[in-house]
Amino acid sequence: MGLMVQKFGGTSVRDADRIRNVANIITETYKNNNDVIVVVSAQGDTTDDLLSKAAEINDNPSKRELDMLLATGEQITISLLAMAIEKMGFPVVSMTGWQAGFLTDRTHTNARIRRIDTERLKSEVEKRKIVIVAGFQGINRNDDITTLGRGGSDTSAVAIAAALNADVCQIYTDVDGVYTADPRLVKNAKKLGEITFNEMLELSSLGAQVLSNRSVEMAKKYNIKLEVLSSLKQVPGTLVKEVAKMEKMLIKGITKDNDCVRITVKDVNNVPGIAFKIFSTLGAKKVNVDIIVQTAARDNKMDMSFTVTHSVVETALAALDELLPTLGIEAHITRDDNLSKVSIVGAGMQSHAGVAAKMFEALGESGINIQTISTSEIKISVLIDQKDADRAVTALHAAFIE
Amino acid sequence: MGLMVQKFGGTSVRDADRIRNVANIITETYKNNNDVIVVVSAQGDTTDDLLSKAAEINDNPSKRELDMLLATGEQITISLLAMAIEKMGFPVVSMTGWQAGFLTDRTHTNARIRRIDTERLKSEVEKRKIVIVAGFQGINRNDDITTLGRGGSDTSAVAIAAALNADVCQIYTDVDGVYTADPRLVKNAKKLGEITFNEMLELSSLGAQVLSNRSVEMAKKYNIKLEVLSSLKQVPGTLVKEVAKMEKMLIKGITKDNDCVRITVKDVNNVPGIAFKIFSTLGAKKVNVDIIVQTAARDNKMDMSFTVTHSVVETALAALDELLPTLGIEAHITRDDNLSKVSIVGAGMQSHAGVAAKMFEALGESGINIQTISTSEIKISVLIDQKDADRAVTALHAAFIE
Repeated sequence: MGLMVQKFGGTSVRDADRIRNVANIITETYKNNNDVIVVVSAQGDTTDDLLSKAAEINDNPSKRELDMLLATGEQITISLLAMAIEKMGFPVVSMTGWQAGFLTDRTHTNARIRRIDTERLKSEVEKRKIVIVAGFQGINRNDDITTLGRGGSDTSAVAIAAALNADVCQIYTDVDGVYTADPRLVKNAKKLGEITFNEMLELSSLGAQVLSNRSVEMAKKYNIKLEVLSSLKQVPGTLVKEVAKMEKMLIKGITKDNDCVRITVKDVNNVPGIAFKIFSTLGAKKVNVDIIVQTAARDNKMDMSFTVTHSVVETALAALDELLPTLGIEAHITRDDNLSKVSIVGAGMQSHAGVAAKMFEALGESGINIQTISTSEIKISVLIDQKDADRAVTALHAAFIE
Repeated sequence: MGLMVQKFGGTSVRDADRIRNVANIITETYKNNNDVIVVVSAQGDTTDDLLSKAAEINDNPSKRELDMLLATGEQITISLLAMAIEKMGFPVVSMTGWQAGFLTDRTHTNARIRRIDTERLKSEVEKRKIVIVAGFQGINRNDDITTLGRGGSDTSAVAIAAALNADVCQIYTDVDGVYTADPRLVKNAKKLGEITFNEMLELSSLGAQVLSNRSVEMAKKYNIKLEVLSSLKQVPGTLVKEVAKMEKMLIKGITKDNDCVRITVKDVNNVPGIAFKIFSTLGAKKVNVDIIVQTAARDNKMDMSFTVTHSVVETALAALDELLPTLGIEAHITRDDNLSKVSIVGAGMQSHAGVAAKMFEALGESGINIQTISTSEIKISVLIDQKDADRAVTALHAAFIE
């Protein structure tokens, strides 16, 4: 009845039994008169196994050779899955990234898709074959194999859906949808039936376990309906699309992120352009800054705080140490490692007065001290002590969702 | 000082240590001002591991998907070997079969090379890069991955040597050359310094452990010097070329082959065309026939014997059962399974009287009964009881070589 793109991650194809299970899902879809293109990742631990083989030989191999090595992982999956479907008597053909026409830029291990030459994909689909494509990989203009980096198979699937104007892109995974909070943390977490692209992006700290941000951004750009669902349980998943059905729930999810370090530059002279200089220097060093807060100036001095992930905190501090003297600033720099960012996410919260107040109230009643507040159109985030984070998520979930 | 093609088989690259060892051989060759193109097989048991993964899912997968699966084996080796060479600080690039330009026919799992588009190979060599090519694989006109079948990596290496007019094609393996007899069987077996292509082909039952016949045939056709040598011992190997240096030895080797079943059709009416009908029928069933012997007719009846390998004996018998009645022949068919073919091989033996006599004498003195004799320009083969075969090889080696 349409063209379906289905993506299955590494755990969904980790052994022969799981591959047979996936083959069942695919052939059921095919039998319902759909054309089916499937995108798969490397099986279970294959990528890690390959990486440790490489590490035994070279602790710093070139990214080109890493891509050459890693791309074998998905190639093994596509052939095995095709064999499983053959065994069931359905017409099927597997394709590597380059065979499926994935052309990328020259960045190895983290390439961007430039375009998909869909000629062969289309011709196989027109022959009513089930097409199994190796996710995560492509080739560059030099005919070298490239890989797309983290979440690459999701991106491959969305890119095919966009290029062929698929009716829906189904992302099968080991959870059965997007929840209002991490179900391992909040017992009453609810599965969302629908959610908008923007909400999904803001829910990234939940969604990272489910969907890569890059794939959501691409789906948003090309307006591809995404569906997140389980490869093991036959239950409805979560639909991610431009405009979600209005549900009673205003707040779509509560998220927690422990990967944030707050850096504070204290007693900065409040002269024009100081913020620009600090953040452009950090940007040049590829330091992504999340929440920025600047206190009001007092005696023409102010404090400026921002958060970064743990992986870049040393880079950020070194850049500041170098920069500040050149600005004639004698500032004290402090860092806080034991923070957590807790957020409530939901489109339209801006137009509903009192959401922020209700949030602060819920946290206050639980005796949780808020250290920093940051708001956006569809999100309110607070920085709190990491030890309070799980209690905060539970309290906010109770206040807004249950 | 020239272009060297070096091929390393699965055992030579089976783990990180062996890969480092191979990287040493390659970089030593490169440091001596040679351009180097390397062809490698899949590591150790990789191919078997992949085949058992497939068997778990489908006991009869399509050959196309098998090729897709198996081709990952060499792709893993090329990247790991390239990483080992990078680690040593040499410029290197790995290439899959299709990147190296291997275009084959459409026969999956046993494809023939049609041509090599050498453009990229040449351009990387001109940049003074060590080039590591995945053996055994190519693509067909449909851009589907194909594999070359048994001994395929040898064939890949010889094909590159031929296409780029290499000075020598070195086949590194786990034995250090071609011997006059199987060294595990005959203690005094000697390594040959040189041997001709034709002798190498006749020595196939020795050579099969060392060089695939297809690669020797191709080397002969394009007159590519082959060198068989060990990846573990630094000793001179065996050179295979058009005209070998005349060595004192007339007989180059003694071979034994237990994979032969003799089929005898007894009491056949000796009418013209009968042999043609039998062997064309067997040929149509892809039964390769080795030694053919026909007795002189008596009372216009004769016996016809031929040998086949165990794998096709049932096919051959079924074909005869079907054919003979249509010819109005009431023949008795017998089979002998416990035979061995023992041969002496050496160019020029035809012009030396007495070689055959000496052979039969040596066997007679050992009390070994000869059941069938077959001679060619550079080989004399006898069929004997399998239980006598090892003694026969030892006796012939003593008579002709020691």
